[in-house]
Amino acid sequence: MALSDAVIRQLIEQTLHTLNEQGGTRHEAWDVHTPAPVDVETISTAQLASYIDHTLLKPEATEEDIRRVCREALQYHFAGVCVNPTWIALVHDMVADAGVVPCTVVGFPLGATLPAAKAFEARLSLDAGAREIDMVMNIGRLKSGHYTYVVDDIARVVHEAHEEGALVKVILETALLTDEEKVAACVLAKIAGADYVKTSTGFGPGGATVEDVALMRRVVGPDMGVKAAGGIRTREQALALIRAGATRLGTSAGVKLVQS
Amino acid sequence: MALSDAVIRQLIEQTLHTLNEQGGTRHEAWDVHTPAPVDVETISTAQLASYIDHTLLKPEATEEDIRRVCREALQYHFAGVCVNPTWIALVHDMVADAGVVPCTVVGFPLGATLPAAKAFEARLSLDAGAREIDMVMNIGRLKSGHYTYVVDDIARVVHEAHEEGALVKVILETALLTDEEKVAACVLAKIAGADYVKTSTGFGPGGATVEDVALMRRVVGPDMGVKAAGGIRTREQALALIRAGATRLGTSAGVKLVQS
Repeated sequence: MALSDAVIRQLIEQTLHTLNEQGGTRHEAWDVHTPAPVDVETISTAQLASYIDHTLLKPEATEEDIRRVCREALQYHFAGVCVNPTWIALVHDMVADAGVVPCTVVGFPLGATLPAAKAFEARLSLDAGAREIDMVMNIGRLKSGHYTYVVDDIARVVHEAHEEGALVKVILETALLTDEEKVAACVLAKIAGADYVKTSTGFGPGGATVEDVALMRRVVGPDMGVKAAGGIRTREQALALIRAGATRLGTSAGVKLVQS
Repeated sequence: MALSDAVIRQLIEQTLHTLNEQGGTRHEAWDVHTPAPVDVETISTAQLASYIDHTLLKPEATEEDIRRVCREALQYHFAGVCVNPTWIALVHDMVADAGVVPCTVVGFPLGATLPAAKAFEARLSLDAGAREIDMVMNIGRLKSGHYTYVVDDIARVVHEAHEEGALVKVILETALLTDEEKVAACVLAKIAGADYVKTSTGFGPGGATVEDVALMRRVVGPDMGVKAAGGIRTREQALALIRAGATRLGTSAGVKLVQS
């Protein structure tokens, strides 16, 4: 089946129909369908740390700031360190041998650059040592109904990453989307072969919510990852997001989360 | 003279020394050195419009939003239309023949991607019809003292643009910089051969100020452009920025500015 905007629109409509049959997209309905991947009541500090991408994406971050974040990730055994591409080689050198994943961002944080530019940025980042790529979906194209454009945009980055055995997370920036657009975005990311969907950049008008994570988990099913990011400041929040279906958390407050 | 971080540091120190001899970096001192390029008391609406890059960089902008901005630019004869790369071909098709400049952004808005990624994004944008490129300086590298990195990052984009007769504006994101760093950033943009320095992305913690524009104009001299952008909402603000030395204004409120 050749993918056209109309065919993809049908797949989105089918997904929305299924969700509605299961009780709609309201939070109360999502809740019952969401299996908790761990028992969050008894989660250990080490288990919580293994969910966290220790993140520093502020444009003014200096080399010393990046080195500090890497040292913290090694100390607390976080899942990964997520930085802008300009620092990914440094992060790879500092943490990869210890089993902490070097993670970077592509088309970040607006997602509105050209598909070939995202693919090339991903390729350069992989060459510099990135093993996970958090790319931003093209939000304006999604809202314009240019679905094949959005799928191709993601698939090109996935192609580059999978050649290296690296993972791709697709950032939806949920705060800019309607519930229907969130569902559509998850369908597109899945069609394109991405490994994760991710809620937010941390630079948009809102961050991760329990409702969005639960909806995303319902749409992508059990086999894709869901990363919650943006505004995660407390252990209570982190656990609620895991309970809702998140399998990764992006936060700059990782040290506080595991110490509390 | 081979450019090393140390040699560039000397050039920055010399510039700071000269500024101090002229009365310091305080606003009161800058004021007297700033020639107004036009008489802002008697500026016509057409003259004001010729300063304005009509700008829509929100990630959620749709095709219809972009078409509206292009129609407005044609109606009011703005200098240019500034959009994200995903829309630059559309903007080129709609406005270039009428003498309105298609403008896009590179490494936007964080400036923290790899130099080769910025150069490639610029190349793709030029191929798609961009004739002005607003690129974001690598702020974290500037603050880390990696001056040759920052100059090379800019120079690569300048190289691509000048091959096509296009212009490059370097966005400093002044709200994240100290006064000394603003001076350093202007020196680096000038060394790299850029055509303009620009205050802000519009996505940072602050926008264009009269003080920053006046300082930037003093450092780059009369031969480079200075673009004020970020938070320009009123005609009064626009005129004050032109009086301080701005030769271009980036704003999404262009229609309101020329109608008021």
